[in-house]
Amino acid sequence: MLRMKINAIPTRTIRPSPDACSVEIIDQTVLPHDFRTLRLSSHEEVAYAIRSMQVRGAPLIGVTAVYGLALAMARQADDATLAATIATLAATRPTAVNLNWALMRMQDHLAPLAPALRAQAAWFEAGVIAEEDVAHCRRIGEHGLELLRPLAKKHGRLNIMTHCNAGWLATVDYGTALAPIYAAFDAGIDVHVWVSETRPRNQGLLTAWELKQHGVPHTIIADNAAGLLMMNGEVDAVIVGADRIAANGDAANKVGTYMKALAAREAGVPFYVAAPRSTIDFDCTNGALIPIEERDGDEVRVVHGIDATQKAGSVRQIPADEAVGNPAFDVTPARFITAIITERGSCPASTKGLRIHYPESRHD
Amino acid sequence: MLRMKINAIPTRTIRPSPDACSVEIIDQTVLPHDFRTLRLSSHEEVAYAIRSMQVRGAPLIGVTAVYGLALAMARQADDATLAATIATLAATRPTAVNLNWALMRMQDHLAPLAPALRAQAAWFEAGVIAEEDVAHCRRIGEHGLELLRPLAKKHGRLNIMTHCNAGWLATVDYGTALAPIYAAFDAGIDVHVWVSETRPRNQGLLTAWELKQHGVPHTIIADNAAGLLMMNGEVDAVIVGADRIAANGDAANKVGTYMKALAAREAGVPFYVAAPRSTIDFDCTNGALIPIEERDGDEVRVVHGIDATQKAGSVRQIPADEAVGNPAFDVTPARFITAIITERGSCPASTKGLRIHYPESRHD
Repeated sequence: MLRMKINAIPTRTIRPSPDACSVEIIDQTVLPHDFRTLRLSSHEEVAYAIRSMQVRGAPLIGVTAVYGLALAMARQADDATLAATIATLAATRPTAVNLNWALMRMQDHLAPLAPALRAQAAWFEAGVIAEEDVAHCRRIGEHGLELLRPLAKKHGRLNIMTHCNAGWLATVDYGTALAPIYAAFDAGIDVHVWVSETRPRNQGLLTAWELKQHGVPHTIIADNAAGLLMMNGEVDAVIVGADRIAANGDAANKVGTYMKALAAREAGVPFYVAAPRSTIDFDCTNGALIPIEERDGDEVRVVHGIDATQKAGSVRQIPADEAVGNPAFDVTPARFITAIITERGSCPASTKGLRIHYPESRHD
Repeated sequence: MLRMKINAIPTRTIRPSPDACSVEIIDQTVLPHDFRTLRLSSHEEVAYAIRSMQVRGAPLIGVTAVYGLALAMARQADDATLAATIATLAATRPTAVNLNWALMRMQDHLAPLAPALRAQAAWFEAGVIAEEDVAHCRRIGEHGLELLRPLAKKHGRLNIMTHCNAGWLATVDYGTALAPIYAAFDAGIDVHVWVSETRPRNQGLLTAWELKQHGVPHTIIADNAAGLLMMNGEVDAVIVGADRIAANGDAANKVGTYMKALAAREAGVPFYVAAPRSTIDFDCTNGALIPIEERDGDEVRVVHGIDATQKAGSVRQIPADEAVGNPAFDVTPARFITAIITERGSCPASTKGLRIHYPESRHD
């Protein structure tokens, strides 16, 4: 996808080395203040990158993990190593199901092979999964655009609200929630995006950074402001990504998504969830069964940024002795979701809706 | 009210000097990292303190403003000065109506008097308004406790969520939303408070600091986490303050309140608004007519705290060239408010409900 302004930015968020010995990622913990890439050479480094959110976004987590598995297979490829590496990588983040989906796909692919063949097969299959992610996100953009066109026609312009970052930084390219926005912008629609900062990790700043590279007008708001904007008619649609979609259409996404869905419903604003097939967990019957990751309270206590001398710095805004709760996700019930946008089109958020597009087995 | 742990804390948020030449306030912009008092000697200093949020909270803003008017009257007390000072002070913050209410009460009180009598009368009346605020907040605590007792009995303990700071720091003493919580704690109820940090100005940290002084167990959360906690049954009641309550019961409060009300309604959690009579604007027929203050985008861009060397510092978390929207309040429609708690008891959030308690004129 086109990256305006910063020419040094790679065209993909994850770049395998030609010698199959490492992958290069963008360190998302220092964005938007700094742009740095990191080279990961082992599955341990990959596991750390996922846990620490150097790479983040459900689809990108899945792709990075399978490259981690491929790196492990290059070192040792027996059955025990295969199982142990999958277990290690799967444990890095509990909510995003793309991680499990991708690892299970790799297991099904690699387990029948002789260990000597696994390293090359793993590297190749990781590349296939990455390329599929790109294709799926591009199609999510196209299908989402079909939903946005009539809204743009109705309102003359398009004010879209999103939450967290579900752009190309969260995938291999294009993004999920942002793919339809980029598609609308590229189609000449007068689009403006409300970007909620997404405390505590401020992934909204990643979204703002992405949108700026692409030239898409946007305004950052505190998460608290979303309800007022919807009540005042300043939002024409909400589009978010998802970390896991249950079989009934309930969708787990970055904490704070649920209240935006409530405000959208109250204001009659369509609320879309955009995600590839790998985000749907047909084994999970409803949202209450989705495990919600509780992260370190210091994510809420300490804020990172750039200080007055333009150096990266941090401040403790909450005293260390204060108890802090930090759930990373929440669940939006299917009844508040206008449609789920996948690479196969948009469908109602229901078991029936999802099954029309995905009648196949879990590894399709 | 009892202040545990920090003995240096004054028993009131605003303390008039014995010589009627100044008032001492707590600088709330440096809390909870530092505790400092400031002495204000002119209405210009008072106006600055209100605008910059050194003093904040609708009731305290009103009381501080009338002391500012009294300070101006001590310097010059002609009709033109009276009118000009009221206009200056009234313009400091547009949403909180207690400010206007208090200034109009002073005008009605002072205008008929000869200028020579105004300084002393103003100082005295400011003291009356301050003492009334204390009495009203104490009664709000008592009336709120009546609502909380059956909930505590039902749940065995009490998990209360609040937003922003509507404690003693926001009033002269006791607080509005926190008054019933202090009353419940003092009555031996096993109470725990979910404190939302309240971006962008993080007034939740003031609430946590207050609760800590009083020994009330509490946990700080990112604003985004409120919906999940309510959905999971971890909240038994929500109590917030208000900056203006329209005649129909719609209530403006710190931005983010509205989405908490939506989540509370969805989860069947009672949602209470606690405020003194001076917060009710009977001239404002509904919430859509309440002016919403738009504050400087740097409040969202820059976060203040304590750096690693324990010095007060700040970081820019959002680049300076990013557009930022920063509305400071939102409006919760009356239909989402279980009851409004005032010094006269609790009543339905409706014109009829409010009129039962307040049949009198605007200055009662």
